[in-house]
Amino acid sequence: MQNFQFMNPTKIIFGKGEVIKLSHEIPAGSKILITYGGGSAKKTGLLDEIKTVLKDFTIGEFGGIEPNPVYETLMKAVDLIRAEKYTFILAVGGGSVIDGTKFIAAAVPFVQADPWTFITDGIAIKEALPFGTVLTLPATGSEMNNGGVITRKSLQAKLAFASPAVYPKFSVLDPVYTYTLPTRQIANGVVDAYVHVMEQYLTYPVAAKVQDRFAEGLLLTLIEEGPKALQKPENYDVRANIMWSATMALNGLIGSGVPQDWATHMIGHEITALYGLDHAQTLAIILPSVMQVMQVEKSDKLLQYGERIWHITGDIPIDDKIMLIIERTRNFFAIMGNKTHFSDYGLGREVIDKILASLESHQMVKLGEKSLVTPAVTRKILELSL
Amino acid sequence: MQNFQFMNPTKIIFGKGEVIKLSHEIPAGSKILITYGGGSAKKTGLLDEIKTVLKDFTIGEFGGIEPNPVYETLMKAVDLIRAEKYTFILAVGGGSVIDGTKFIAAAVPFVQADPWTFITDGIAIKEALPFGTVLTLPATGSEMNNGGVITRKSLQAKLAFASPAVYPKFSVLDPVYTYTLPTRQIANGVVDAYVHVMEQYLTYPVAAKVQDRFAEGLLLTLIEEGPKALQKPENYDVRANIMWSATMALNGLIGSGVPQDWATHMIGHEITALYGLDHAQTLAIILPSVMQVMQVEKSDKLLQYGERIWHITGDIPIDDKIMLIIERTRNFFAIMGNKTHFSDYGLGREVIDKILASLESHQMVKLGEKSLVTPAVTRKILELSL
Repeated sequence: MQNFQFMNPTKIIFGKGEVIKLSHEIPAGSKILITYGGGSAKKTGLLDEIKTVLKDFTIGEFGGIEPNPVYETLMKAVDLIRAEKYTFILAVGGGSVIDGTKFIAAAVPFVQADPWTFITDGIAIKEALPFGTVLTLPATGSEMNNGGVITRKSLQAKLAFASPAVYPKFSVLDPVYTYTLPTRQIANGVVDAYVHVMEQYLTYPVAAKVQDRFAEGLLLTLIEEGPKALQKPENYDVRANIMWSATMALNGLIGSGVPQDWATHMIGHEITALYGLDHAQTLAIILPSVMQVMQVEKSDKLLQYGERIWHITGDIPIDDKIMLIIERTRNFFAIMGNKTHFSDYGLGREVIDKILASLESHQMVKLGEKSLVTPAVTRKILELSL
Repeated sequence: MQNFQFMNPTKIIFGKGEVIKLSHEIPAGSKILITYGGGSAKKTGLLDEIKTVLKDFTIGEFGGIEPNPVYETLMKAVDLIRAEKYTFILAVGGGSVIDGTKFIAAAVPFVQADPWTFITDGIAIKEALPFGTVLTLPATGSEMNNGGVITRKSLQAKLAFASPAVYPKFSVLDPVYTYTLPTRQIANGVVDAYVHVMEQYLTYPVAAKVQDRFAEGLLLTLIEEGPKALQKPENYDVRANIMWSATMALNGLIGSGVPQDWATHMIGHEITALYGLDHAQTLAIILPSVMQVMQVEKSDKLLQYGERIWHITGDIPIDDKIMLIIERTRNFFAIMGNKTHFSDYGLGREVIDKILASLESHQMVKLGEKSLVTPAVTRKILELSL
């Protein structure tokens, strides 16, 4: 096991009806800005429910945070908070709203320069306005971690930031709020969580048995529950297990003490920035190709994954075993409605050079757990994904 | 899944040589009291190593905290801290030293009454002196939770307390410090951690798939690594996996959203208080009997446990299956050097009434996940344990 530090102070409030406890979690006298996305929180009545629970607080609203939240939008919220002196933010939504809110929270007290420099110049985020979340879409794990991904449209850039200052104070996870999600969003969420686990699991062995078992437990749960979620949107236990899996997939725990990959995500971010594919769609395209191209470096963990997750054992040549393992993974993404080739989205060979150029412009030229995913390797990965 | 709240703010600093980071974790200018146990921390040189790292702080020492830490001893540390105005405590040791330190930390600012009333009168612990830990014995999970168990000799009582105020600020977990542990202590630690998992797992199903998989992952790891730890004390990875398993076994995570039992622990505490058996020895005696007596109520989880942990499947009558599952569990404790009957410790039928009387005097008359372990049921459990 590698040495590690782990700390995660976010309070999780999980279960049906728990939104009622919101008022105890926000400091009395707070002036709260509620941030949200495209309006589904409004349509479903959740926003009204929250306002009723928080009737003793002064409340404002900022809607319209996009999927893949955009710097230009978020800065409007920053201006609003500074002008109106809000003291607490409550993000109501999925990973995009929460990521965006983290950026807003960190940007508000950062007046010395453009907050975009958090990302581009690697300036440490030292403080942030306190915020909590009410999660409506299980996927990114943002509700219990300290990172976010922001898109700057004018630069066609989608980039990540992180800081201990941007852990949510609390997150309310009520699986019932996910009943009304469009199928595509719940499917994307399951794939996103699955790939988060894989990025922290499918590297090389370091004798981290607990982390491996936990990661495998999340994969097995997502495989069991994901397809059910598509068929029976109102099955509470299915939604609860998916929600908790997605949170645990990226709250730092399973990634502690182990190598991490993230090549799939880095390549995927460029695809979303360039062509607007959903985040999970890009992951479903790229991960199987990463597994194939990096199969020698990843063979030990690939075989463990095949055995423990897909029960692929026995006397088959290793190469065949690995192809079978990749096939099963691809098949799971397909069951979850996520296609696994560029051609499924009407994209062809022209994407390769553009994606490589974008990666290079963001200094993403040595990706993966051993920095072996160079542009030449990425080219192979993209070729296999066409 | 049941509704739950989960928050755990303790910072874990894990791995070889990490004690070097201690000085960054304690506020500058702190006056630190180092608490420890029987002196092994001194003998092994760990205490000197820590003092070197903390050379810029004012440091005092309080040794002699017993296994099953005793109120009378702990109150001496409380007096010392109040008199000398220490501002931070650093616990160096295993679960007993850390549990004792939690009690000390909570007792120092509690001047309005005898701190024993935390336990007997259920007075909420609102504040505590900040403290961190350097763990030398993986077992209790105290290094990453907010509970403790204290013994009051004069009353032959061993009782538990808990409060969000007594989470350690940080815990340094260096597996190397466990190399010099006596075999009995590492064996006890593995059994203790195993039973912690079982108390939160072996109840009835609530469709909490992630918690089940995580619990099973810990059990599998302890079964794989425990025996190796007895044979090869200096195998780093084995010790690291046991250490992380023991911490994860009782930091609140696997117990979130699921029913919990704890009957084995409650009965076990009385045995230790009355007869001085090691904590893990009492658990190894009682758990198999609890499994047997409560087999109908626990049958679903017993069978899941048998299948996923001991690979007991196939067309065997359920009763036989369950006996086999209990036998395997008993056998694992035996491999870990923990005997599973009172008679192995020279104790006979006379224990039954005394243990029942002690439980009654502590209002422990409806134990278990459904409060079904009444004195009559406990009598059966004890009969089977003779």
